[in-house]
Amino acid sequence: MLLDVSLEQAQNIILSHIPALAGEQLPLMDSLGRVLAADYHAAHDLPLQARSAVDGYALAVAEAPSGSSFVLKDPPSTYDEAEISGEQAMAVTTGGLMPGGTQAVVPHEKTRLQDGKLSVLEIIKPGNNIKTGGEDYTEGELLAGGGAVIDAGVAAVLAAFGYGRVQVRLRPRVAILGLGNNIVPFQVTPETYQVRDSNGPMLAAMIARDGGSVVSLEVASSLASATDMMRQMLSEADMVICTGGTYAKGADEARQVMDSLGVELFYWGVPIQPGSHHGLGKQGSTLVMALSGNPAACAVSYHLYVAPALISMQGRQLVYPMVKARCTNGFAKKSGSRRFVRGHARYADDGWQVEVLPGQKPSMLKSLLNCNCLIDLPAGTPPVGVDEKVTIWLL
Amino acid sequence: MLLDVSLEQAQNIILSHIPALAGEQLPLMDSLGRVLAADYHAAHDLPLQARSAVDGYALAVAEAPSGSSFVLKDPPSTYDEAEISGEQAMAVTTGGLMPGGTQAVVPHEKTRLQDGKLSVLEIIKPGNNIKTGGEDYTEGELLAGGGAVIDAGVAAVLAAFGYGRVQVRLRPRVAILGLGNNIVPFQVTPETYQVRDSNGPMLAAMIARDGGSVVSLEVASSLASATDMMRQMLSEADMVICTGGTYAKGADEARQVMDSLGVELFYWGVPIQPGSHHGLGKQGSTLVMALSGNPAACAVSYHLYVAPALISMQGRQLVYPMVKARCTNGFAKKSGSRRFVRGHARYADDGWQVEVLPGQKPSMLKSLLNCNCLIDLPAGTPPVGVDEKVTIWLL
Repeated sequence: MLLDVSLEQAQNIILSHIPALAGEQLPLMDSLGRVLAADYHAAHDLPLQARSAVDGYALAVAEAPSGSSFVLKDPPSTYDEAEISGEQAMAVTTGGLMPGGTQAVVPHEKTRLQDGKLSVLEIIKPGNNIKTGGEDYTEGELLAGGGAVIDAGVAAVLAAFGYGRVQVRLRPRVAILGLGNNIVPFQVTPETYQVRDSNGPMLAAMIARDGGSVVSLEVASSLASATDMMRQMLSEADMVICTGGTYAKGADEARQVMDSLGVELFYWGVPIQPGSHHGLGKQGSTLVMALSGNPAACAVSYHLYVAPALISMQGRQLVYPMVKARCTNGFAKKSGSRRFVRGHARYADDGWQVEVLPGQKPSMLKSLLNCNCLIDLPAGTPPVGVDEKVTIWLL
Repeated sequence: MLLDVSLEQAQNIILSHIPALAGEQLPLMDSLGRVLAADYHAAHDLPLQARSAVDGYALAVAEAPSGSSFVLKDPPSTYDEAEISGEQAMAVTTGGLMPGGTQAVVPHEKTRLQDGKLSVLEIIKPGNNIKTGGEDYTEGELLAGGGAVIDAGVAAVLAAFGYGRVQVRLRPRVAILGLGNNIVPFQVTPETYQVRDSNGPMLAAMIARDGGSVVSLEVASSLASATDMMRQMLSEADMVICTGGTYAKGADEARQVMDSLGVELFYWGVPIQPGSHHGLGKQGSTLVMALSGNPAACAVSYHLYVAPALISMQGRQLVYPMVKARCTNGFAKKSGSRRFVRGHARYADDGWQVEVLPGQKPSMLKSLLNCNCLIDLPAGTPPVGVDEKVTIWLL
């Protein structure tokens, strides 16, 4: 008989069973938003040598007052051989080489050109608008480490060093199985006693956002078809999420299907509301997450159990920022177990505030709209008054 | 001659020239993360009629003390015809119908079953664990409006009402053109006088994140090829971003190319640092955004000019939250023009704090790593001391 575990125990057990996903090499432009699977270092100084930082004119003087005049010299075919001296100036471009003898660069907009005479309209100081060799990165410096998301900044530095193909983590493959004889796929018109599956699309949206890839989405109306579907899913996914059929600690369908397929169970039940009907198993290297079929319970469980696992499979750690917030509308129920209330948080001049979203029953969908935080109410919390402070987890 | 405009003027002019993008109909599962192009309403009450909110047992009594006993009655093939009365109980499932006569439902885990006798281990109250018809949504209620991102919550409600195909905004098609005779595509090994284009991949990462689709990415080393490339881009994109060649108010390459193709110019130059070298044009319904070629200037310009336009093309409004933050490390330069310093912000117990990122020259890449905010320093701001308060824009 498996025991309940606390939320923190459950999260630790999950993280101790994360399969290590392999990497794959992709063209940089196909890797945007993915997670690096290796460290990348600067292959050379950047810039390689001194460069102009602006479009403008190289000057051979290091200091001069505003209003100084220079004689424009035509640039040669390559700057390697160019030289300036005395009162000479030469056009240079952003990121481009400069002629020998350059002491400072002045941007175009701080100059006036008339009859070949260049007037400089600012005070010239040594090294102005010159990037020195290695000023941005020096050879061997870490650009971005394994686990970094390839966002705009990482993409820019990888491109600057010519990393045209990069090693990224495989996306975790996730299969979603909805259980219940009163659930139909959302594309199907339900009978009176049935409802459409909304958990599948909801989970798919969050899985995609968190870097996973949904490889199958099924709804099973019998134990036999559920077993067949999960068997297939175990062979092709890194994680199987099973929603519904989790009601009791004894003979519930999710548990029966997992048992019949030899899925090893680690725990079953976590004393929180909603989301207590959750169990974790594993077969081979595939994690199996059983979640409640109630939409709000399913969503809360995703945030607490599934998202940390998916992020961890990609070599990262998910930590929700926890902050104190003023609850603008209160919450009328007392909480027997620890409770996670869906909220909408915003930062105002006087600090964080959170609105309890309407429709807080686990069976209702409405609290999932505009939800950007969970309000964490410890077991035994009395009703929350208007303007009372609560702890929120920013999602 | 076009005049400089202020940042706010530039942003208003941009928003006044946004082309209206058409919508397209997609299967719900292919629309996750996209933006709704129409309002969606509840086609019926949800639930349609009363349902069980849990897996458990329907009871015919409305009130009873903990420890009460019931006789389990087998459920029929359809619940429509089932009835319970007196001390009868009948198994029900989450979201499923209940037999006639149901007054309350008790979840499995609050019961014990022995020899056909069901003991209920909690106090029974009227309507316990019953969802009433329409309690989540009533017919005609707005589920999600045009402009809403199809996140997990929106996907769930659309699925629950069977919206298998949804009308979404087309992704803005964006073409990126890098100008400069010392710039090569990042896949190419540069000559000594050249550098790799890092702006293209950087912009592509942000464009993808903001819902756009990069339809072409080119680097032009001559005015002639730039003109050919931009001509093609104007015919196939909703927005052309041109980086580099923006140095002066007179004869700069970006301006020359735009002029030669009949692009109407609205302004040229915004007095901020970095990002002053920015101009806006339009040909037909295609916006042309000229940005500085310096990476940090290009990134800041993206946040200030491009992102609001892309989001607006999708029928949404981008508003960066602005908050006061304690600057943990200060910034040594005084700011002649209004300046946007790249920072990393985090919320701590005593409020927001921001670290000025290393490498703040416009020509450097380093400040783009871990950048999650811009520090907005008004024109004339003296050096910022350690622990001084500054205004930040959260990206």
